Amino acid sequence: MSDALIQDLRALIGAPHVLIGADLAPYCGDWTGHYTSAPCAVARPADTAQVSAVVQACARHGVPVVPVGGRTGLVGGAMTTGGLMLSLERLNRIRDIRTEARVAVVEAGVILAALQDAAADHGLYFPLWFGARGSAMVGGALSTNAGGSNVLRYGSTRALCLGLEVVLADGQVLNLMGALHKDNSGYDLRDLFIGAEGTLGVITAAVMKLVPAAQAHATAMVALDNLPAALTLLNRLQGETGGLVEAFEYMPESYLRRLAEARPDLDPPFTPRPAIALLVELGATAPRDCAAEPDGSLPLTSLLETVLAGALEDGLIHDAHIARNEAQRRAMWHRRELAAEVSFARKPLIDTDIALPLDAVAPLLERFEARLPDLDAGAETLAIAHLGDGNIHLTIFPSHDAPDHADRIVALLEHEVQTLGGTFSAEHGVGLSKKASMARRKDPVALAVMRQIKQALDPQNLMNPGKVLP
Amino acid sequence: MSDALIQDLRALIGAPHVLIGADLAPYCGDWTGHYTSAPCAVARPADTAQVSAVVQACARHGVPVVPVGGRTGLVGGAMTTGGLMLSLERLNRIRDIRTEARVAVVEAGVILAALQDAAADHGLYFPLWFGARGSAMVGGALSTNAGGSNVLRYGSTRALCLGLEVVLADGQVLNLMGALHKDNSGYDLRDLFIGAEGTLGVITAAVMKLVPAAQAHATAMVALDNLPAALTLLNRLQGETGGLVEAFEYMPESYLRRLAEARPDLDPPFTPRPAIALLVELGATAPRDCAAEPDGSLPLTSLLETVLAGALEDGLIHDAHIARNEAQRRAMWHRRELAAEVSFARKPLIDTDIALPLDAVAPLLERFEARLPDLDAGAETLAIAHLGDGNIHLTIFPSHDAPDHADRIVALLEHEVQTLGGTFSAEHGVGLSKKASMARRKDPVALAVMRQIKQALDPQNLMNPGKVLP
Repeated sequence: MSDALIQDLRALIGAPHVLIGADLAPYCGDWTGHYTSAPCAVARPADTAQVSAVVQACARHGVPVVPVGGRTGLVGGAMTTGGLMLSLERLNRIRDIRTEARVAVVEAGVILAALQDAAADHGLYFPLWFGARGSAMVGGALSTNAGGSNVLRYGSTRALCLGLEVVLADGQVLNLMGALHKDNSGYDLRDLFIGAEGTLGVITAAVMKLVPAAQAHATAMVALDNLPAALTLLNRLQGETGGLVEAFEYMPESYLRRLAEARPDLDPPFTPRPAIALLVELGATAPRDCAAEPDGSLPLTSLLETVLAGALEDGLIHDAHIARNEAQRRAMWHRRELAAEVSFARKPLIDTDIALPLDAVAPLLERFEARLPDLDAGAETLAIAHLGDGNIHLTIFPSHDAPDHADRIVALLEHEVQTLGGTFSAEHGVGLSKKASMARRKDPVALAVMRQIKQALDPQNLMNPGKVLP
Repeated sequence: MSDALIQDLRALIGAPHVLIGADLAPYCGDWTGHYTSAPCAVARPADTAQVSAVVQACARHGVPVVPVGGRTGLVGGAMTTGGLMLSLERLNRIRDIRTEARVAVVEAGVILAALQDAAADHGLYFPLWFGARGSAMVGGALSTNAGGSNVLRYGSTRALCLGLEVVLADGQVLNLMGALHKDNSGYDLRDLFIGAEGTLGVITAAVMKLVPAAQAHATAMVALDNLPAALTLLNRLQGETGGLVEAFEYMPESYLRRLAEARPDLDPPFTPRPAIALLVELGATAPRDCAAEPDGSLPLTSLLETVLAGALEDGLIHDAHIARNEAQRRAMWHRRELAAEVSFARKPLIDTDIALPLDAVAPLLERFEARLPDLDAGAETLAIAHLGDGNIHLTIFPSHDAPDHADRIVALLEHEVQTLGGTFSAEHGVGLSKKASMARRKDPVALAVMRQIKQALDPQNLMNPGKVLP
């Protein structure tokens, strides 16, 4: 079956772009190390018409199609055994940047950092920021509705997308490539395909929003001792800056301690080490914020100082350090960006990607920490959070390595998350890794509706089968 | 069939809430005067469980269900002949306002103005602003993805919704009532039901975002002579204020002239009357913008003055008047808010609701104005626009009243809109009035996908049948 497919694909897109055998190696693993793929081949079509031809060939031969982009996903969403990997890497053109309309028309294989560089040439910014931005592609970000550190200001990938082109399961091309801020012409198909992880079709192109590039940032590390105070600080910062908060990242004492062990030079200058450190960043475009004062100070920095001084006076926070130059700012971010490395250094571990309503983050952490010892008295936790979105990457280090034990811990966490109205899947997607959680925790009516839609749009079940839906 | 249904409904929700005969009168017309309804009955369930029971009863009896809210829609979306009107008016509880999380949990029958009043008690604002806000309900706004004057800052209704509850065609209750800023647990069902105009299910409750209430506004009328200059001004204002633009409304000379005829007192103080007048408004929460200076001036007003002075100096605009007090601000808004009255005073008319990419608004108006005389040398036009969203309410006054003639004019407009990547349906929805446009102009592949989804979720075709899909 796959031999016949491979012959067809060679005719359709050219033999050099149908990889088999040893050439598959770079596509078979992923960053997490948890998942391995064994595709029958990797196809690298050049454009939307070729993607359509490839998908039609797969439909004829009954072979699953698994779209892959930068392979930076964390949930096994681009793995396959026996299916065809359809790599979007050659659809890498930035077709247009319309400066006045502030949109970019891009193909799915454009790397996020490349789009950011291209936007910068126009004084604009594509505001999707996460560690893998040098490898992750627009199509993958759309397929997983990727998040990151700037979501509280600009939204997740879905909020940054105005238009979409999708190759459907039967090879037809769905053209939703509008650059419109208002469009009520029927059902919102765009948002249905965004975040569907390739299970409903292959995203081939998109119209993405750009924003004016920040002309200045003001960045601080803040020490405080409880999460409700952090939420009050966030709301105060949003009100007093007029919504300029671009990042509001949470690092608890347990993380700072591990960070200091690994990198003593990066220990934040708070004595004693606080219960909570926040990385707060404002971004501004307005001259009144960005034009240096005669004494060299930046108004945006002074504004952040004023708000933090008020919070200090009111007992909301204990201490704060403001970055005085770009090197200090980079050092503050470095503390946050080492989170994955520090978290994943110890094994065994359970990593999670939960989100809560903003006012339920504190209760969740309290309840889980209180109940975890019942299951594992020696377990430790490490919570890093995009606190402005209520999104916590909670890593749990159980005292011993056993799948049943890990499952019980995850079940406890999920129970507490669900009770507080949260989700087990915030920004990484479902893929393979959260399918069991979908089965356990998602509203059964919602699951049934999702299956009806999947069945309607992909009756052969060939579009990234076995992902997302349990 | 409907007699048996009515007996069932009386048993399910109580006879006083099943209206028939003369009691139907208030539900049979709408504001436009274009559409009339002849329902078999109006059911007014008290809660979600009763909505579910009503929908199940309709499914048993094979009677269509047409949800109605405040009946302020403009596209005939809540009309029926023989179906059951399901009024959400008794689901009018604001269940919760969570101040720190900045969300409101509301039932579908809550009137927008009531939610705005309730939010104001917490120092917050529900930022959906249009003329009918005193009658329109949250459920209707969600079902039509309503827009309005503040979309450029806060988005359409879809962007304001975090969670949703929907009664499906079989009566099952879909619970998506999260208050989450990130949630990637499967397909985005929420956004599928938003804007579906009741054709996929009945929205019964929602979690809506609130924002900090503006502490000050700065408002101006600006005179200029071309649309590209207006877009440059918009981008400059966004950059120099850091995104504080809440309204950017377009009124051309043709409107100002008619307005002056009807209301000489409201003629803007520009001599001569400019080609274009803009209503520009900034809104701010930050003390640095909102705290009066020692001389009594408002920093936000000074900021607007500075930007407009720069635009004047650069020749972008000809003149500007800034509101010095709330009365002047109200007068400026009054000019804009009389648009519907002024536009609809003359007959025959063709009213439209188009949107274009921001950089395509000027070409659209130029092309259409240039070609319209080929069809009707005596026709006049009047364009009022939410220019910040690219959304134009273009009213055309043909020289004679004939349906074929009107159709040809609409076809010309739609052709030019489509060529420039625009939509024939921006913020009012499709309902009955834009169905022909859907058939003519929507991507056929998109229409096919919509029909597959409709068939999958409403196989009996009882949920507001005959709307949206041609």
